[in-house]
Amino acid sequence: MNNQKSKFTNIAIDSMGGDFGPSEVIPALNIVLQGRGDIFFLIFGDENKIAGYLSKFPELKKRSSVIHTEKVIENDEKPSLALRSSKGSSMRMAIEAVKNGEAAAVVSAGNTGALMALAKMVLKTVPGIHRPAIASVMPSVNGDSIMLDLGANILVDGENLVQFAVLGSIFARAHKKIEKPSVGLLNIGSEETKGPDHVRKAAEILSYVDFPGKYIGFVEGGDITKGSVDVIVSDGYAGNIALKTAEGVGSLIRQYFVESFSSNPLSRLGGLLAYYPLKTLKKRMDPRLYNGGVFLGLNGLCIKSHGGADALAFSNAVILAVRLARKGYIDQVVSDISNLTKQETFIPQES
Amino acid sequence: MNNQKSKFTNIAIDSMGGDFGPSEVIPALNIVLQGRGDIFFLIFGDENKIAGYLSKFPELKKRSSVIHTEKVIENDEKPSLALRSSKGSSMRMAIEAVKNGEAAAVVSAGNTGALMALAKMVLKTVPGIHRPAIASVMPSVNGDSIMLDLGANILVDGENLVQFAVLGSIFARAHKKIEKPSVGLLNIGSEETKGPDHVRKAAEILSYVDFPGKYIGFVEGGDITKGSVDVIVSDGYAGNIALKTAEGVGSLIRQYFVESFSSNPLSRLGGLLAYYPLKTLKKRMDPRLYNGGVFLGLNGLCIKSHGGADALAFSNAVILAVRLARKGYIDQVVSDISNLTKQETFIPQES
Repeated sequence: MNNQKSKFTNIAIDSMGGDFGPSEVIPALNIVLQGRGDIFFLIFGDENKIAGYLSKFPELKKRSSVIHTEKVIENDEKPSLALRSSKGSSMRMAIEAVKNGEAAAVVSAGNTGALMALAKMVLKTVPGIHRPAIASVMPSVNGDSIMLDLGANILVDGENLVQFAVLGSIFARAHKKIEKPSVGLLNIGSEETKGPDHVRKAAEILSYVDFPGKYIGFVEGGDITKGSVDVIVSDGYAGNIALKTAEGVGSLIRQYFVESFSSNPLSRLGGLLAYYPLKTLKKRMDPRLYNGGVFLGLNGLCIKSHGGADALAFSNAVILAVRLARKGYIDQVVSDISNLTKQETFIPQES
Repeated sequence: MNNQKSKFTNIAIDSMGGDFGPSEVIPALNIVLQGRGDIFFLIFGDENKIAGYLSKFPELKKRSSVIHTEKVIENDEKPSLALRSSKGSSMRMAIEAVKNGEAAAVVSAGNTGALMALAKMVLKTVPGIHRPAIASVMPSVNGDSIMLDLGANILVDGENLVQFAVLGSIFARAHKKIEKPSVGLLNIGSEETKGPDHVRKAAEILSYVDFPGKYIGFVEGGDITKGSVDVIVSDGYAGNIALKTAEGVGSLIRQYFVESFSSNPLSRLGGLLAYYPLKTLKKRMDPRLYNGGVFLGLNGLCIKSHGGADALAFSNAVILAVRLARKGYIDQVVSDISNLTKQETFIPQES
């Protein structure tokens, strides 16, 4: 496999995770290859189940290796239990491929808790980072923004949030191609005196430390989609609730949509006549374009796809992995976190 | 005024608050009167500014009294400062009308912080309630749900959340006409071990106390619009972020909408041909239908309208006030909170 490393970006794929497994994962990889000549996949999973799907895509077959695994971590397995029995599973072996330098990133649609626990155990955190965070790309009026943490950490302190600001800024730099992304702390108002202690503490530190982003102050829930900032930093409690609320509102409106255009024959005709604008709208509202929760702060890239992802959704999580891997995300984090902890004014936290 | 009280539901209106003042508030009151024969308004504000708008609605003129006030609390005034200089302001006098029994509820589109501070000072909390909360009606797949707290309290304990569950259940009973509303605690997962201490503590208490709702467990951000429960209970930090995120996603999608149907002449034609289904959709997505943050836990009903509310939006906040007033909301809260604190198993909290 090592001979692939010079020319190709190798991506490890856990093909057994999520609701569908290889039936959606394999076609997803074929989508990723389109227009991308320099990717190689290490596909971990049951080769008997993979073979049939893979045979439909001759080009993908040439650009991938299947590594047979017997064990699968179930979607509803408790992370602590999954950890103990993970040896030889598709998920763990895919993560180990990153650890061993055989792949630049790993993508899985499997059990989130188990994936985080395994990724932490196998890859370890970057020196100076005490808590990995989950980040995702969110749609906004001004293009995409990056939001973290989306649920890895419920209780954090101000220093954790500052580290998240670093992790998110480097992500935004890779994703949005801007040198100094603007960063906001998610809060319930923009006044300095508002919000919980850990958020106000982070604001204080961010106002003077040198980090890869530009701190602009507190932002509110509405700013996520307003595109007021490139990076929205939050604890995993508020972040997870915001993310899932946003997804829920999207679903509700898509349902209103379907109902409005199918309530009677005249409405259905209206829908046909407005086919093109509706198609554009549907595409812009498609949550599959924003699939992929990136585990940040680890010594290796690990991307969690939505469990219910279809081929298009899964392909977007893989594309995110490729993009971050090529930008040398991990190296930048290592150097920027090291720079942060060296700053005299920065109060080092306890683990 | 007292002779109005037997037949009519009196509502006190701060007509000077918000971005527009009487120009939207007065037409809003006229909307409320349509089909409602038994409402009387006490309108507080500058009578010179009000008179011109009121003269356009002869029926409203008969069904209201204007109480002239000179002072207005500014939208950007600090609550502490506003409190000190509030005497004789339209906002404070409208709240005092509730305190004095002249009105069953007060509605204002003014400064949220000042309104909460004044309402607390003038009306006081219901015995047993230590922290008032802000609640609102949220759209969901199964009709409306009630969500609180939306930002009055950042730091709460488990007992506070239990009280919010009581306040929200009685609200849902009045709004949704169901005897025993289902109640969920907003969290980042449905497993019992997940989430911050105060949320898990509230879950423990709610599982055994007798209260006006039916506790069903943890819910996630996506459940708000899924209609999984009638009442969603949260601290004001997560609740405010969820509310504003939801509003933001709604705005983003409305913008996608406008852009999709105006990107070129063909799209615009499509929009015309799909006029009726689009109109239905627009109506269902209209945030003005959900205007009105209700301050719960006080000895009197106080409803905060969005500052940017137009006449239609403001009218919905007033209708909410009328509905809760007629259902005897305050009396029910007083009796149910008294019942809750009498239960041996309920650990009384400190103020």
